[in-house]
Amino acid sequence: MVKDQNKLDVLNINTLRMLAADTVEKAKSGHPGMPMGAAAMAYVLWTRYLHHNPQDPTWINRDRFVLSAGHGSALVYALLHLTGYDLPLEELKNFRQWGSKTPGHPEFRHTPGVEATTGPLGQGLANGVGMAIAERFLSAHFNRPGYNVVDHYTYVIASDGDLMEGVSHESASLAGHLKLGKLICLYDDNRISIEGDTGIAYTEDRAKRFEAYGWQALHVSDGNDIARLAAAIQVARDEKERPSMILIRTRIGYGSPGKEGTAAAHGEPLGAEEIKRTKENLDWPLAPDFFIPEESLAYFRQAVDRGISWQSRWQAEFDSFAKAFPDLALEFKQWMSGRLQDNWANGIPVFPADKKGLATRSASGTVLNNIASKVTNLIGGSADLAPSNKTIIKGAGDFASGNYNGRNMHFGVREHGMGSIANGMALHGGLIPYCATFLVFSDYMRPSIRMAAMMGLKVIYIFTHDSIGLGEDGPTHQPIEQLAGLRAIPNLTVIRPADANETAEAWKYALEHEKGPIVLILSRQNLPTLDRQKVAPAAGLSRGAYILSETEGKKPDAILMASGSEVHIALQAAGMLQEDGVSVRVVSMPSWELFEEQPDEYRKIVLPPEITAKVAVEAGVAQGWRYYTGDKGEIIGINHFGASAPYQVLFEKFGFTAENVVDKVMQTIRRNTKKP
Amino acid sequence: MVKDQNKLDVLNINTLRMLAADTVEKAKSGHPGMPMGAAAMAYVLWTRYLHHNPQDPTWINRDRFVLSAGHGSALVYALLHLTGYDLPLEELKNFRQWGSKTPGHPEFRHTPGVEATTGPLGQGLANGVGMAIAERFLSAHFNRPGYNVVDHYTYVIASDGDLMEGVSHESASLAGHLKLGKLICLYDDNRISIEGDTGIAYTEDRAKRFEAYGWQALHVSDGNDIARLAAAIQVARDEKERPSMILIRTRIGYGSPGKEGTAAAHGEPLGAEEIKRTKENLDWPLAPDFFIPEESLAYFRQAVDRGISWQSRWQAEFDSFAKAFPDLALEFKQWMSGRLQDNWANGIPVFPADKKGLATRSASGTVLNNIASKVTNLIGGSADLAPSNKTIIKGAGDFASGNYNGRNMHFGVREHGMGSIANGMALHGGLIPYCATFLVFSDYMRPSIRMAAMMGLKVIYIFTHDSIGLGEDGPTHQPIEQLAGLRAIPNLTVIRPADANETAEAWKYALEHEKGPIVLILSRQNLPTLDRQKVAPAAGLSRGAYILSETEGKKPDAILMASGSEVHIALQAAGMLQEDGVSVRVVSMPSWELFEEQPDEYRKIVLPPEITAKVAVEAGVAQGWRYYTGDKGEIIGINHFGASAPYQVLFEKFGFTAENVVDKVMQTIRRNTKKP
Repeated sequence: MVKDQNKLDVLNINTLRMLAADTVEKAKSGHPGMPMGAAAMAYVLWTRYLHHNPQDPTWINRDRFVLSAGHGSALVYALLHLTGYDLPLEELKNFRQWGSKTPGHPEFRHTPGVEATTGPLGQGLANGVGMAIAERFLSAHFNRPGYNVVDHYTYVIASDGDLMEGVSHESASLAGHLKLGKLICLYDDNRISIEGDTGIAYTEDRAKRFEAYGWQALHVSDGNDIARLAAAIQVARDEKERPSMILIRTRIGYGSPGKEGTAAAHGEPLGAEEIKRTKENLDWPLAPDFFIPEESLAYFRQAVDRGISWQSRWQAEFDSFAKAFPDLALEFKQWMSGRLQDNWANGIPVFPADKKGLATRSASGTVLNNIASKVTNLIGGSADLAPSNKTIIKGAGDFASGNYNGRNMHFGVREHGMGSIANGMALHGGLIPYCATFLVFSDYMRPSIRMAAMMGLKVIYIFTHDSIGLGEDGPTHQPIEQLAGLRAIPNLTVIRPADANETAEAWKYALEHEKGPIVLILSRQNLPTLDRQKVAPAAGLSRGAYILSETEGKKPDAILMASGSEVHIALQAAGMLQEDGVSVRVVSMPSWELFEEQPDEYRKIVLPPEITAKVAVEAGVAQGWRYYTGDKGEIIGINHFGASAPYQVLFEKFGFTAENVVDKVMQTIRRNTKKP
Repeated sequence: MVKDQNKLDVLNINTLRMLAADTVEKAKSGHPGMPMGAAAMAYVLWTRYLHHNPQDPTWINRDRFVLSAGHGSALVYALLHLTGYDLPLEELKNFRQWGSKTPGHPEFRHTPGVEATTGPLGQGLANGVGMAIAERFLSAHFNRPGYNVVDHYTYVIASDGDLMEGVSHESASLAGHLKLGKLICLYDDNRISIEGDTGIAYTEDRAKRFEAYGWQALHVSDGNDIARLAAAIQVARDEKERPSMILIRTRIGYGSPGKEGTAAAHGEPLGAEEIKRTKENLDWPLAPDFFIPEESLAYFRQAVDRGISWQSRWQAEFDSFAKAFPDLALEFKQWMSGRLQDNWANGIPVFPADKKGLATRSASGTVLNNIASKVTNLIGGSADLAPSNKTIIKGAGDFASGNYNGRNMHFGVREHGMGSIANGMALHGGLIPYCATFLVFSDYMRPSIRMAAMMGLKVIYIFTHDSIGLGEDGPTHQPIEQLAGLRAIPNLTVIRPADANETAEAWKYALEHEKGPIVLILSRQNLPTLDRQKVAPAAGLSRGAYILSETEGKKPDAILMASGSEVHIALQAAGMLQEDGVSVRVVSMPSWELFEEQPDEYRKIVLPPEITAKVAVEAGVAQGWRYYTGDKGEIIGINHFGASAPYQVLFEKFGFTAENVVDKVMQTIRRNTKKP
């Protein structure tokens, strides 16, 4: 019996292996080596440990599985197909083709059962940390004696490249610190990377390194040894405090006589001849391609019944939980649905007009706290800048190993890890994560912001100290190009509010937005809270740009548009111009993306083409503003790095004064009215 | 005597400490805690070990010192002033003010003796790795028995934040791998970060972690114990293979009764009252501020004579080396001068016209090899994508611990570390570093690219696989917003050549450019090598944009502008339009930055305002192109993420075909000639 099982196991692993290899071969593109080398670990994990339900990939208490080594996508597609997800074999035959469900790297929302879009190395492991954090928070919040409604593992398969990336350090160090014992990483230690043997660049003691982070390190010296693989996973599961790193020695392209153990197996199909030799070597039928032995399919497909049974057992437990704790069950359902409570925004304050005003980061802190009292699954923190970013939810406690109920996360000085962890938290479901740093350091986490945008995740970024307004810290800390850089990312909504009330509106929008991440760009310095009796309501923010003020009854001679801390300067300039008999419209323009979503008609009302003297004012690079000012307009921007000095000095030296704005408006008007 | 020296040491350390504290206090802004806590380690290092010459901060064989914890800038300024650099006390009194030599964070080129701009955490440590690599390469290349013309240490002071950042992992892992024994990091282990005790987020075993990287870890349990600090540095210097991490337990804000050991000492002045209490506590005169005891100044200023003597001893050795090895000495001088050999570019091939053509990455590989044969201090590599990036210098060997002569660096999958290490190599002097990855992963190293631009370093980035032209790997690997994102960075020159010959011109420009880093953006896929008999010479590249072709003798009806892989599509479209009697100018526009440097006159010749039908074609976000197309132009871009499919399919689906370009040109012409 055992012997038969062994034989069946080998058959099944070869099924996985060759299905992946054939998938890559047919596409004439892809990575066969990783799936072939890691097939056994994936097989043991998916058939013996992974709790999932192929018929309902959204079951909330499923174990999470992330292939951080996303280039091995063919392995996941093979697993999904074999275990009974809605991924027909036809899709594997369409690997990497237009319109298929099987893109080159796994894509979240695109393929049922794919938990995260991976490929950029290191991201998946950090996503796994975020998922494990979400699990800990949700179980602490919801579980009650006798009821473990949230109780699952998070598994990651990672490669050499994943562990070389800095984000793996940041996220793994935090995972160890937080004692995320239910996070288990299977490290496909194949010692081959694109440039050859990893020994040319990567000789650190990986086990020791992860032990230093507070992880348990386990070793499997033969990546095809099913018993040892199973034993190691079991030991990892039994460890309750330390995350586990299982270092599994594999051979890339296992089974391929000519390419096994070489970089040649990594990034291109084996080739017809080598496929043939591999099949011969593995006692595999040469035809047909995509061959799946019946007994293998039957074995893998047991996942369907098992999954149904797991989920229904969980559902029964949940139903009984719901009877015992009806309010909690309601909250659970609401969190998981992604919907917000009714009236969640009711308490958001309206800030009174105030010339001295307050920094938008401070307004944000107030609004965040207000929202957090109702939106109780809003959880997050800063990369060690919370007091500056104003991101602490008062009274909500710290998320820590002794207190997984806490909602204030201390990410440490780990921006990239923070971003990718927040992605994992959002991917898990049930939570609305936010994270924060200085705007200039958004650069450190840009790869994770991109992934959030690509996956359409609801992650809220709070980036403060948003310009030279940061002052004395100097050019290293002053964002110049970051606004433009973030606006360039597709499906990312960037909002730079002009005052406290626009900040409140920005938060409202952020919470309601379902299609992707939101960036709030906030000032360090105080900004006047505009008198909304005199200027238009801040609710205009949701349209991206709106007419803030204009000279009554007069067609504007010019339009001033600005965002954030430059809006009040524009208003001041408009006042001065009006005294000189020049009629100026001021447009507050907190978000290009939201403005672009408005009907053409609205956009033409705000920025009529026939008014050519359009002047934009923003303390960042001019890039992109020409689209709004038009050929005959003018941009007051800053196309060089900043300097160290008090911010008032910098605003003056770099031309962000009402006087300079007045000059530029007058020059523009004169230039445009000059006869040619 | 020993006792007196002890007393003097304490006095000197307090001089440093209080000079820094007063500096921050006067500025009413800055970070007093780090300098006060780390004063002793800095003192021991600078007065007992650091080989430098305050009168000649450019002496090539000086030890390098980098304050990775750049927020402690006041410490460096105090050291520079006290040891006799050209930094008068007046400058310390002007800390963080407009026009001063003492910005909030240390700035390279701005303050004599500052070796690197630091502040963004983790960068300085990685820069140090780069400097240590440069030292190893240069000594392997130049030293001869009896002549150690390059032989120095690289010291870094790093903070908790530096070690939390992922870039510290990437660079330290590589440093251990490369056995950079002359790299010594003093870790200011003060256990305080902005959010409070580092224990809230950072509990990894740092010593064990660095040992896992192959470093020697040393401990000093009392950061004010001069003897133990000195002993540890000595042990570190004696270790020839392993880089050393000296973990030094300090107390932030040491000496301040009310703030020592707390986050309150980190980022703001102590305040008048606390300064007073600190001075009382340290037996320091309450007045004047910026007090420097005479005996302290005299002690620190010994650095001047010591420095002169070190440098002249070195000069004598070098002179004798120059007699023994005149050619080598000439090469040494040339490398250090930053000048290129005469005729360095003579061998760069001209690529023959070829419809099938080749990928610009392949052309780049050929050109790089050609240049490298003459420019022998060109050294670099890829973040594990060398075979794809085409960055290997054939026959030049691998830079490795057994072979520091090698010029091919294997950075591993560590883009961020690679970028910051390249910065360190450039900062060291003597080398021209290049580094490479896929364009999309330039995001991972964006913070180091920014630093290179800010410091004006000559670093060449080779970013290949520059668009959806990457094909099957899908959206995670397809750059969309990266071109715009890089163009937004001040002082960074981005060049996207259209064919092999433009690639050669781009390399020429890159080597000649002295003011900052250069990005070469290269295609994965083959591009036709344009027939320069029929279109303008590729030398036009150096002007950023140039007229590639137009209908002879006719004023253009429209202008098509494009970069990189879209240029040949534009040419094809122009040909089709010409057959239809429409006269089209095609402008190749490889670099916005270079075009902006041209005289207004030239720019108006290439893109005359009166021709309104200007259509830009580029497989990236449209952001910024409006500046060139004007209000009445059109942009064919891609404002969403890509997809996984063969690249030809993607180009077609996303509108990058000659047919679509023809349509858009015709629509634009019609729209613009319509009577209103």
